[in-house]
Amino acid sequence: MTAPDDLPVGAAPADAPTPVSLDDLPIRDDLRGLSPYGAPQLDVAVRLNTNENSYPVPEPVVEAIGKALAAELRDLNRYPDRDAVALRADLAGYLGHGLTVDGVWAANGSNEIQQQLLQAFGGPGRLALGFTPAYSMHPLLALGTGTAWQPARRGADFGLTVDDAVAQVREHRPDVVFLCSPNNPTGTALDPEVVAAVLDVAPGMVVVDEAYAEFARPGTVSALAVLPGHPRLVVTRTMSKAFGFAGGRLGYLAADPAVVAAVQLVRLPYHLSALTQAAARAALAHRDALLGTVAAIMAQRDRIVATLRDRGLRVADSDANFVLFEVGGDQSVAWRALLDRGVLVRDVGLAGWLRVTAGTPAETDAFLAAMEDIG
Amino acid sequence: MTAPDDLPVGAAPADAPTPVSLDDLPIRDDLRGLSPYGAPQLDVAVRLNTNENSYPVPEPVVEAIGKALAAELRDLNRYPDRDAVALRADLAGYLGHGLTVDGVWAANGSNEIQQQLLQAFGGPGRLALGFTPAYSMHPLLALGTGTAWQPARRGADFGLTVDDAVAQVREHRPDVVFLCSPNNPTGTALDPEVVAAVLDVAPGMVVVDEAYAEFARPGTVSALAVLPGHPRLVVTRTMSKAFGFAGGRLGYLAADPAVVAAVQLVRLPYHLSALTQAAARAALAHRDALLGTVAAIMAQRDRIVATLRDRGLRVADSDANFVLFEVGGDQSVAWRALLDRGVLVRDVGLAGWLRVTAGTPAETDAFLAAMEDIG
Repeated sequence: MTAPDDLPVGAAPADAPTPVSLDDLPIRDDLRGLSPYGAPQLDVAVRLNTNENSYPVPEPVVEAIGKALAAELRDLNRYPDRDAVALRADLAGYLGHGLTVDGVWAANGSNEIQQQLLQAFGGPGRLALGFTPAYSMHPLLALGTGTAWQPARRGADFGLTVDDAVAQVREHRPDVVFLCSPNNPTGTALDPEVVAAVLDVAPGMVVVDEAYAEFARPGTVSALAVLPGHPRLVVTRTMSKAFGFAGGRLGYLAADPAVVAAVQLVRLPYHLSALTQAAARAALAHRDALLGTVAAIMAQRDRIVATLRDRGLRVADSDANFVLFEVGGDQSVAWRALLDRGVLVRDVGLAGWLRVTAGTPAETDAFLAAMEDIG
Repeated sequence: MTAPDDLPVGAAPADAPTPVSLDDLPIRDDLRGLSPYGAPQLDVAVRLNTNENSYPVPEPVVEAIGKALAAELRDLNRYPDRDAVALRADLAGYLGHGLTVDGVWAANGSNEIQQQLLQAFGGPGRLALGFTPAYSMHPLLALGTGTAWQPARRGADFGLTVDDAVAQVREHRPDVVFLCSPNNPTGTALDPEVVAAVLDVAPGMVVVDEAYAEFARPGTVSALAVLPGHPRLVVTRTMSKAFGFAGGRLGYLAADPAVVAAVQLVRLPYHLSALTQAAARAALAHRDALLGTVAAIMAQRDRIVATLRDRGLRVADSDANFVLFEVGGDQSVAWRALLDRGVLVRDVGLAGWLRVTAGTPAETDAFLAAMEDIG
């Protein structure tokens, strides 16, 4: 006979309620068994796994943002400008291409922008399509908005040809097509003829995700140039990457004003805080200082590509601040081996490949040394 | 024959493209013809239409929030804590009732909290129910998440009895029930027996929206007290009202940890900026100063109720920072007459009734004088 005090340490007393599990709740069937999205947030010296900009905000910009925020604080008891007009005008000025406030919309990260687009143009009974591997949030945003999701093929080299794209859009007739240029996780910008051809045949909206556009190699054409006369085209951008503003959470879109009117039907009222609007405006006003890191990051990106190719590895062309490279074997083993050497990269679930962010020269040194070490 | 220069001023030249309208786009059929949600944002001296806290943030709190924000700015190049752990722990500490970080979740306003709840527990093929008139965003959040919406009845005095609530939940078997306590726009807190009875018969989740809880009359019981042993109960709160933090956008929920795990499946990664997290934590640390306005606002609320009743108007009991009152006639005419006298109140679309926010004594003076004037 076992005495009560023989219970293992930490065991619940007899009268403690049994903890409820997620499966005990009436959650949607299509969510059962899933885990929350997100890369592991590990405390590692060299973090090259989420395509952040490795350069901290320069001191004069810190001061300017601090001053802009301070000016808002007394009136935080009031709701912010629901339409974020001043911020949208500043974003339009940054983008150029003749855009004005009516053709720009902003939200808490480009994830929220794309969620709003799916709420307006996707949703129950509708289909979104993306050419995988691409940004892994797109199918999750579809799931979260009740939009059916159709993964479409890329070529063996992760490329996307006009013929391949057109054939699959014709076959599935999606309500929303996602194109990524530069693509994530492969890094390569899209041939503008693919955008034009998809626009021609797509029956619904065409969203070009240009989160990494500022890092593109010279000569790359943004889909912003194609906006005039194409009201079903949407270009999404973010301040998380080139601007080094990931912690500030500011994504935006450029499109025909009718598209902006459409997302305003589904946006949450006062979705953008007064602090977000003020901080983003101050950052945009100091864009030269913030975007001053882009050339340095592109140099490290090109150095990673060249060095790994010199060592005989296959590497995707990159127009972004990251590089997709083949490790020759199980990528999860290589990921762990790099982590053991203090370098955190991203396993995007692509057999044999890993993704590394291009950061400072010292981070590139550490990454390339670790790669050589695991040989 | 009309010469080209006879065109009216501002007319488009012959080769300008015809502007695209929202109806030309492939938006969802259930969004066609709608207008964006939101009260008119008018530049009026006395704005009592959105239940903001009329008191600006006190200077010592401005300084504390400014300092907390400044500490984040250099590292804005990094993504924020995806799980907002420190903020959630602070919110749990504020709520009490034995809550810990695992039972609290935060987002950009309680609208985003409730949208996440509908994404996890509502959505396509599922039904949400609310007892109208109630918070008018609930049906819009249902629409935006593809959740069917069932409006349920209140009594003639806007009250909700156990029998009425139970009968309608039994009839419709909703996946999500919204209860508001205090209710908006009526202002009255719910009998806790209604919450208990609905929890007993509801087949799905029960969300109690307590946005105005801090203003409740003495003796009012929060649904937080009912959380233990009720994993299908969710209590949502906001810092927009009592805390005077509407511009900072911070809503939150308290529930069983399994509910928090469920919303993490649908939340957008990094949805809460580093600035929002830091500012909200600083505000919570200075809660005594911020919540110091609550008693003064309650006094004005009670003064409005008593004065209007003295004048012979019907007025709903209020546990909030606003008052619903009968104008005796077309409420849109009364709304306009008050606006003409420099006082902006809210026409919530309830025939014969208007809603006014309780603010400073001077704002109450202006409102009551304008009411007397339109007599």
